[in-house]
Amino acid sequence: MAFMVIFLLVSFLHAHVILASDPDPLRDFCIPHTDGHASAYIPCKNSSDITVEDFVFSGIKSPETFDKSGLSSIPVNANVFPGLNTLGVSLARADFDVDGVNAPHYHPRATEVAYVLEGKLYSGFVDTQNRIFAKVIEKGDVMVFPRGLVHFQMNVGDKRATILGSFDSQNPGLQRIPVAVFGSGIKEGLLEKAFGLSTKEISKLRKEFTPKEE
Amino acid sequence: MAFMVIFLLVSFLHAHVILASDPDPLRDFCIPHTDGHASAYIPCKNSSDITVEDFVFSGIKSPETFDKSGLSSIPVNANVFPGLNTLGVSLARADFDVDGVNAPHYHPRATEVAYVLEGKLYSGFVDTQNRIFAKVIEKGDVMVFPRGLVHFQMNVGDKRATILGSFDSQNPGLQRIPVAVFGSGIKEGLLEKAFGLSTKEISKLRKEFTPKEE
Amino acid sequence: MAFMVIFLLVSFLHAHVILASDPDPLRDFCIPHTDGHASAYIPCKNSSDITVEDFVFSGIKSPETFDKSGLSSIPVNANVFPGLNTLGVSLARADFDVDGVNAPHYHPRATEVAYVLEGKLYSGFVDTQNRIFAKVIEKGDVMVFPRGLVHFQMNVGDKRATILGSFDSQNPGLQRIPVAVFGSGIKEGLLEKAFGLSTKEISKLRKEFTPKEE
Amino acid sequence: MAFMVIFLLVSFLHAHVILASDPDPLRDFCIPHTDGHASAYIPCKNSSDITVEDFVFSGIKSPETFDKSGLSSIPVNANVFPGLNTLGVSLARADFDVDGVNAPHYHPRATEVAYVLEGKLYSGFVDTQNRIFAKVIEKGDVMVFPRGLVHFQMNVGDKRATILGSFDSQNPGLQRIPVAVFGSGIKEGLLEKAFGLSTKEISKLRKEFTPKEE
Amino acid sequence: MAFMVIFLLVSFLHAHVILASDPDPLRDFCIPHTDGHASAYIPCKNSSDITVEDFVFSGIKSPETFDKSGLSSIPVNANVFPGLNTLGVSLARADFDVDGVNAPHYHPRATEVAYVLEGKLYSGFVDTQNRIFAKVIEKGDVMVFPRGLVHFQMNVGDKRATILGSFDSQNPGLQRIPVAVFGSGIKEGLLEKAFGLSTKEISKLRKEFTPKEE
Amino acid sequence: MAFMVIFLLVSFLHAHVILASDPDPLRDFCIPHTDGHASAYIPCKNSSDITVEDFVFSGIKSPETFDKSGLSSIPVNANVFPGLNTLGVSLARADFDVDGVNAPHYHPRATEVAYVLEGKLYSGFVDTQNRIFAKVIEKGDVMVFPRGLVHFQMNVGDKRATILGSFDSQNPGLQRIPVAVFGSGIKEGLLEKAFGLSTKEISKLRKEFTPKEE
Repeated sequence: MAFMVIFLLVSFLHAHVILASDPDPLRDFCIPHTDGHASAYIPCKNSSDITVEDFVFSGIKSPETFDKSGLSSIPVNANVFPGLNTLGVSLARADFDVDGVNAPHYHPRATEVAYVLEGKLYSGFVDTQNRIFAKVIEKGDVMVFPRGLVHFQMNVGDKRATILGSFDSQNPGLQRIPVAVFGSGIKEGLLEKAFGLSTKEISKLRKEFTPKEE
Repeated sequence: MAFMVIFLLVSFLHAHVILASDPDPLRDFCIPHTDGHASAYIPCKNSSDITVEDFVFSGIKSPETFDKSGLSSIPVNANVFPGLNTLGVSLARADFDVDGVNAPHYHPRATEVAYVLEGKLYSGFVDTQNRIFAKVIEKGDVMVFPRGLVHFQMNVGDKRATILGSFDSQNPGLQRIPVAVFGSGIKEGLLEKAFGLSTKEISKLRKEFTPKEE
Repeated sequence: MAFMVIFLLVSFLHAHVILASDPDPLRDFCIPHTDGHASAYIPCKNSSDITVEDFVFSGIKSPETFDKSGLSSIPVNANVFPGLNTLGVSLARADFDVDGVNAPHYHPRATEVAYVLEGKLYSGFVDTQNRIFAKVIEKGDVMVFPRGLVHFQMNVGDKRATILGSFDSQNPGLQRIPVAVFGSGIKEGLLEKAFGLSTKEISKLRKEFTPKEE
Repeated sequence: MAFMVIFLLVSFLHAHVILASDPDPLRDFCIPHTDGHASAYIPCKNSSDITVEDFVFSGIKSPETFDKSGLSSIPVNANVFPGLNTLGVSLARADFDVDGVNAPHYHPRATEVAYVLEGKLYSGFVDTQNRIFAKVIEKGDVMVFPRGLVHFQMNVGDKRATILGSFDSQNPGLQRIPVAVFGSGIKEGLLEKAFGLSTKEISKLRKEFTPKEE
Repeated sequence: MAFMVIFLLVSFLHAHVILASDPDPLRDFCIPHTDGHASAYIPCKNSSDITVEDFVFSGIKSPETFDKSGLSSIPVNANVFPGLNTLGVSLARADFDVDGVNAPHYHPRATEVAYVLEGKLYSGFVDTQNRIFAKVIEKGDVMVFPRGLVHFQMNVGDKRATILGSFDSQNPGLQRIPVAVFGSGIKEGLLEKAFGLSTKEISKLRKEFTPKEE
Repeated sequence: MAFMVIFLLVSFLHAHVILASDPDPLRDFCIPHTDGHASAYIPCKNSSDITVEDFVFSGIKSPETFDKSGLSSIPVNANVFPGLNTLGVSLARADFDVDGVNAPHYHPRATEVAYVLEGKLYSGFVDTQNRIFAKVIEKGDVMVFPRGLVHFQMNVGDKRATILGSFDSQNPGLQRIPVAVFGSGIKEGLLEKAFGLSTKEISKLRKEFTPKEE
């Protein structure tokens, strides 16, 4: 029975750290436990168990495989890099194959400021007046996408492109328009009327973006 | 020349109040000037010029005309109801014709909690894991749409429906997916690849949602 | 003994969610557990246990019975509607019998914006300079009560009245002046001097507002 | 005409600084202009015009004269000590004559933590469940009054008493219950019903707390 | 075994309360448990277990012993005074022996406003442009040290001096420059280059500030 | 005279935008005017004057010249990249010559998360318990420096190194320990006692870090 109690508490721990809010941490840092050991019962590791490794992340040295739109995107938020917990910042690395596209998307909880590590990208965002702000940016350029606005990129160079995005939230969230709208199961009738498309066109889009096995 | 100075300062005033941030006002209230009188040079009206009328708004007693998707939506944010300035809240009234649709959209700067004043609506939102949470809600029901997530409604009753939305921001912003994505001028090539649609299909959508005379 | 541990943890859970702060949630939502089952040990329900019902509340379709001042007031905060947890908003429904009164009160943690669903009310607030802003508002009117200021309403129509209040906090709190001041047990001598009333007058007020059996 | 423009801009300045919000200043400090000189057109003084004197305040070395309840209260907020602007903190000094009373009041925008400089005070607050937390505190004691809750003090020693209050807002605001409720002009009928008092009793209270010449 | 579970949960509790953030508490107060009793499993004490004693602190009535720089400093943060938890404020008492010095230091999470209880101190801070703002302040003076800036004091009177500092955070943190830079173990080579000092000079400083037995 | 008025208002503008606070912008963006044209009287440019160029910054494509510690550091905050205004994020590029050092420093208003663009650096920070967290990081590594804590880097590779730092503030501020402490003019006596150094040693350090011509 002792074992059961331990297990449940560990679950608790994991969920716990997501309740706090971004601004103004109440102590220097708080590394949540991510393992199942007995010492995992407290939400922040004991100071004596924290090492410099908790504050360093090495998982974005290279891209992952490209998806069918030619994109590899790796988030570095507090879920994958627990050292960011309570600190109000996170990163993401995005790689683009030639002609690769980062479909229109937005982050519900953060502004993004992107730095071009390599390549040439058509990059932009749309404000709440539906005005577009887009241009081709190149290696070394910085572009900002204001909090919560739809933005996008496309590799328009002749080799791979890479950007590093920074966020003012430890967990900015991501909502990709095509899959959120057409792949989530919103009623066909609503989508038809909203997009002025036929039942057949909507069906095609839903088939395209609905996950196969979920 | 005096007149010119006045004019410019009034413009200043209008823009001014949008800089401050939602949390924790620094005094009881601040009613921005919205007229062109000489006394308009200061960002908050003098206490002696403020009356109870500054804190009451009567512009949502009835709907406006429906748009082609059968929706009439009236925001009650700090731009139209200046008394909300610095106070961190706003409202919106949405009316739905029979079969009317509020297309997938989101508010970049607020959670919305909606109260059904009249009618029956299919209503829902999509989270950042692309899970949908939707059902039919009726008169007197309350539904919450978490900050920044895509949500939508459709009148599924046999008469008009009305909801009152409340926000935790004086200016939540609104980004309607169809027009933001297809009506803002994002490059066709990017949209084709992002949505898996043909040039012709994208052209049709762009024509549908691009404002005629702007 | 296992049972005891479970019980205590459930208590923990309930208290837990009130620690986080209103601004900027760290994920889409967090539905706290409100039952006593084993799975209740974690502060946010597992994603797989969450349904659309968690985001809909149907408890304000009709008023409760009126109190002796002719008021029925139903809060819709995160305690009664757990789906609001971490989302920074809440509601309240208040119904007024003919001549019914909502005594001077305030919300320590929120601005309120009220919408008149039905009827005619004398409604107002007092700012920190002791200026009153009050008038009669009617069906369809909106009135804002700035964060933390004393406000009040009285039904001045000839039938019942109803308002819907919205707040920029998941738990705005409520401090009713008569009972907070005269019904909480503040020393008589202090109250006499503060209000310039006799011992007898203060005794009467204390009797009036002190809860009978608590 | 130049003079007129200058005058208006100075007014602007004064009102300006109250718009920003308490958390997270955007630079080290911002001393607003409080004089009428030409250089006063900008909201923060130029760095070169700022001296250490802007950050030091000497106005609470002694109490002011006691009011009729035996209280002298001096706020040290950003209005009287402009160096606090944007910094999120303020103070107040309160002196109590023998038997002096600080009537039930609250601060809409801050927690207060009080330190007893001298004397013996019955001191307490009431929470939103109408529970009272009160006791006699003495020189050197610290007591906290949570954000927005009604609190009060009475000198119960045999000599003068003094406390220093600290706030987590540059302008916490102050709402004194007796004058806010009975001295602001709330309709008699509402007050009668809210407090269960007769027309005559309410009239007496209103006469007591309504400012004579305003 | 029951005992083990209890122990672990108590540890949890202690760490728990530091996760939430300063602004906008979600209820009136939350007193964390600080003992090892069974009832300690919940992060906030039950309302019925809270008394006025939870909100009063008496630990700064007199200074502690002076350290070798002639300083006694007692923090009154939420760790030592749990009643401050979630309330966004804290205090500190600092006493200075004749010639005593409070070495250059800063608080990473708060502005400080200091009140001179006794004596005469040379007191100041340095802004991010490296400008110093310093002067001698005396009994009754108030001085503000903006959030996160290096500040310092030295007793320049002929008797002991005492100040009371207030912060807009329940746990402002403290980083003392000499020990943080020379006593923490930063590589000698880096310090030599950063301060333009010789290996020998850096060694002396490191020996001076490195804790003996830790 | 008209000219004078214009000039003064432009000054106003520049100072103005630094008052607002980081969290929760009240509209999509606000590009402050940075020129002296007539249209500069309003704090945010008119929507029609804003182009995509306002949101792109190209000033960190290459390092500047190294200072005597072998460092080139270029901030990309809202002062140099006005498009960041109200958006809560900023960047910095730091280049290190072989053996170059970024002296112990901290940012009073932000956490920093650094990404190594090139090279090998000894990098670390010190927490408020004076514990050091430091190690050698390499190209592609990410390291976080919690808000307000002292941190530092040294190039320990055999070629130049470059890092890109991201902040959760549009203006994080920077306080370099050597110059803030020894180059700002803090009284020698205080520094001697604080660091345990002789008058001569302090004089040498002050000479080293005091700006020549200011």
